[in-house]
Amino acid sequence: MNYTTIQEIDSLQEWVNEAIAIKKNPLQNKALGENKTLGMLFFNPSLRTRLSTQKAALNLGMNVMVMNFTNEGWTLEFEDGSIMDQGASEHIKEAAQVVSQYCDIIAIRAFAELKDKEKDNAETVLSGFLKYATVPIVNMESATGHPLQALADAITMEEHKTVHRPKVVLSWAPHPKALPQAVANSFVQMMQLQDADFVITHPEGYELNPEITKDSKIEYDQNKAFENADFIYTKNWSSYKEYGKVTNTDPNWTVTAEKMQLTNTAKFMHCLPVRRNVIVADEVIDNANSIVIEQANNRTYAAQLVLQKILEEIRS
Amino acid sequence: MNYTTIQEIDSLQEWVNEAIAIKKNPLQNKALGENKTLGMLFFNPSLRTRLSTQKAALNLGMNVMVMNFTNEGWTLEFEDGSIMDQGASEHIKEAAQVVSQYCDIIAIRAFAELKDKEKDNAETVLSGFLKYATVPIVNMESATGHPLQALADAITMEEHKTVHRPKVVLSWAPHPKALPQAVANSFVQMMQLQDADFVITHPEGYELNPEITKDSKIEYDQNKAFENADFIYTKNWSSYKEYGKVTNTDPNWTVTAEKMQLTNTAKFMHCLPVRRNVIVADEVIDNANSIVIEQANNRTYAAQLVLQKILEEIRS
Amino acid sequence: MNYTTIQEIDSLQEWVNEAIAIKKNPLQNKALGENKTLGMLFFNPSLRTRLSTQKAALNLGMNVMVMNFTNEGWTLEFEDGSIMDQGASEHIKEAAQVVSQYCDIIAIRAFAELKDKEKDNAETVLSGFLKYATVPIVNMESATGHPLQALADAITMEEHKTVHRPKVVLSWAPHPKALPQAVANSFVQMMQLQDADFVITHPEGYELNPEITKDSKIEYDQNKAFENADFIYTKNWSSYKEYGKVTNTDPNWTVTAEKMQLTNTAKFMHCLPVRRNVIVADEVIDNANSIVIEQANNRTYAAQLVLQKILEEIRS
Repeated sequence: MNYTTIQEIDSLQEWVNEAIAIKKNPLQNKALGENKTLGMLFFNPSLRTRLSTQKAALNLGMNVMVMNFTNEGWTLEFEDGSIMDQGASEHIKEAAQVVSQYCDIIAIRAFAELKDKEKDNAETVLSGFLKYATVPIVNMESATGHPLQALADAITMEEHKTVHRPKVVLSWAPHPKALPQAVANSFVQMMQLQDADFVITHPEGYELNPEITKDSKIEYDQNKAFENADFIYTKNWSSYKEYGKVTNTDPNWTVTAEKMQLTNTAKFMHCLPVRRNVIVADEVIDNANSIVIEQANNRTYAAQLVLQKILEEIRS
Repeated sequence: MNYTTIQEIDSLQEWVNEAIAIKKNPLQNKALGENKTLGMLFFNPSLRTRLSTQKAALNLGMNVMVMNFTNEGWTLEFEDGSIMDQGASEHIKEAAQVVSQYCDIIAIRAFAELKDKEKDNAETVLSGFLKYATVPIVNMESATGHPLQALADAITMEEHKTVHRPKVVLSWAPHPKALPQAVANSFVQMMQLQDADFVITHPEGYELNPEITKDSKIEYDQNKAFENADFIYTKNWSSYKEYGKVTNTDPNWTVTAEKMQLTNTAKFMHCLPVRRNVIVADEVIDNANSIVIEQANNRTYAAQLVLQKILEEIRS
Repeated sequence: MNYTTIQEIDSLQEWVNEAIAIKKNPLQNKALGENKTLGMLFFNPSLRTRLSTQKAALNLGMNVMVMNFTNEGWTLEFEDGSIMDQGASEHIKEAAQVVSQYCDIIAIRAFAELKDKEKDNAETVLSGFLKYATVPIVNMESATGHPLQALADAITMEEHKTVHRPKVVLSWAPHPKALPQAVANSFVQMMQLQDADFVITHPEGYELNPEITKDSKIEYDQNKAFENADFIYTKNWSSYKEYGKVTNTDPNWTVTAEKMQLTNTAKFMHCLPVRRNVIVADEVIDNANSIVIEQANNRTYAAQLVLQKILEEIRS
């Protein structure tokens, strides 16, 4: 079993319930990971993912080996058949097979480079590990998805929802730098597994990959989208059409208290890190309805559930 | 309980005695830290602190997660209310709250930048964590203090003192680069908790923050200061008046064998790393009266005592 | 006991047999390393060594502390008597003694700089630790040797040899950048402890240090060397004569299927990372006779044997 996209979840409701049970007693399966090793490979920076995934592994009694490919290892080649006389010292084919021999599970973070849509959509790094590794792979944010985040988001919404079928809004917000679409993509895919009134709102031109959004509702009027919302999930992403470009930094899209008043006292969510007073006003994120900190806490239990399921499969 | 300044020690003599007892049997409390996690966050390089604090946590049975904010995480914003459209990706308010959910104790290293006295005195990073973290904080050297070092220094002096009230000299020494005042500050504050004949010697213009030195004796004549000393503690710091500047590199301040002959066969101490033949002559640091290596060893037991006290409070 | 060169092996055959026994039951000695700490110090990048040595230590129940001197610590000075007013902040004399107090075994990676033959041959970093450390030292690739790799190579050949006295060829291959001779050196020294028909082949001018190759057979005609070989061990190294220079990048030295046909269906070996289609053609490394992945796997058991022997000595 791998965990590379949100679509690998067979029953989201069951997974969420199991994660909430783990959260109540996080050390209950500490024997499960004994003498098992999680290798965490980072091609990009990480705070929450780095620490929460380690914590999850420790709660399961696993050993953890962390490695930053940015400065600790070799530059990898991902193309088959290439003549490796340039910068890359090692092919993914060897790297993935070799690391599989030292680790029982490999977790990987490799962001979109936002330069080449096809290359990012091909998930060069993650796909390379999936193809050549001989142990289960966990996605700690890849070019197009962040399924550990989306699972944590689902747990958090389950804990905070007050109606059976909440209105959930994914709202784009401005940001000075080009950011990947990964978090938004996985959130959309996760919402498609939920019974909810789900709306995506963003400026025209900021449509996500239509193969991911499918028939999810898009509303270009942010105010209209916010009306009666139970959850506002904010996130910036760079343009998918004009791939990787920042074509809009309109501060009118910042989530403010005024906008939140349009909602049904909605809970405010964000995956973090968040740029205050650019993505969201202080008054919103510091409000009692902001659940971003608990959302980050649930990263541990999302990761722990995934690792636990993989360990159970390994042990069986 | 936090451990951010030497002034948080209620009874230095008791702490020193407890640390010496831990040193004799470092694994005696290995159950205390079981399933507890120390997060070590580095904003600057570290060798002794990195390894000795980890070792202390391992002796207590803790899990350790190490993270370098220099290259592994996000750039943090510390100012309240700022519009985060520049370099910083994450506010300390979120970072500190989030990390607190993954760790039972957070240890932080964040040096003075030596550019802005007010900012350094405000202890931007450490204060940010203290303000927003929800778990105990340990200072692994901040802008203005290094209390784990000073505690290790106290342990080392206790082990080596031959008279009840030794003469202890903190001597400035030259250095090519601008260094923080943190070690010197904490040493001074620690000495103020001791019964000793304590003298600080440095060139005029190198006075430490008077709010820290208070009525500690200052002697501008290094030779006079060394007379009959039992301990010579050497350390460079950059100017506090002309903040962060190196205004003096006079090699006459280097600690030499000749100068040590003025002392009462004094023990030589330095926190390390030390620049040989700039701060201190080889003949002094290589002499049998040099106790710098044992001083570094005591870093483990200083850290272990602090972590143990915090764990005992958490467990109670 | 240190493990710094392959020549520290008293009986290669016994060591290989012991490592193969460990491979069959890697957790059998998990109590041996309890409360013992391995410090892994990296002055250069590492993937296999970093992860396999950690894994070996974990299999033995040890604690592991990993530190990158490249960016996490201080720049070290190695020369005795130097006036340290330049870039280096800490002398090896202090660093080695200090780290010895936090670790029970120190493992070090410090490549050749390939600028100054004498300095590299003096093994500045490794020798510095050997001279001043007070705990056993393990070489994780130094300027002139990589004995953990060579031990893994011996294990791998033992597992795959089909005749008592195989023909083993160490073949130079082209590479765009200047690489150290360390792997080749240790392989040669290891082969000198074996009963085998051992041949080194490389272009003229690429002779390794004659003090290492001694009377090992050198054949400048690669094709002739490959005839009837049972093992082809390929590796690039830069010139030893024109020290550290790349004087030849002749693609005719790349190991191809055509060349492998000259052999006795030889097994193909390489220490990795390997540049595909520069050092070796895809068709060779992807062939069933390529044992590079298993060779990398044996790094764990080579390291585990070495750590186990040291721990047994510490415990006794």
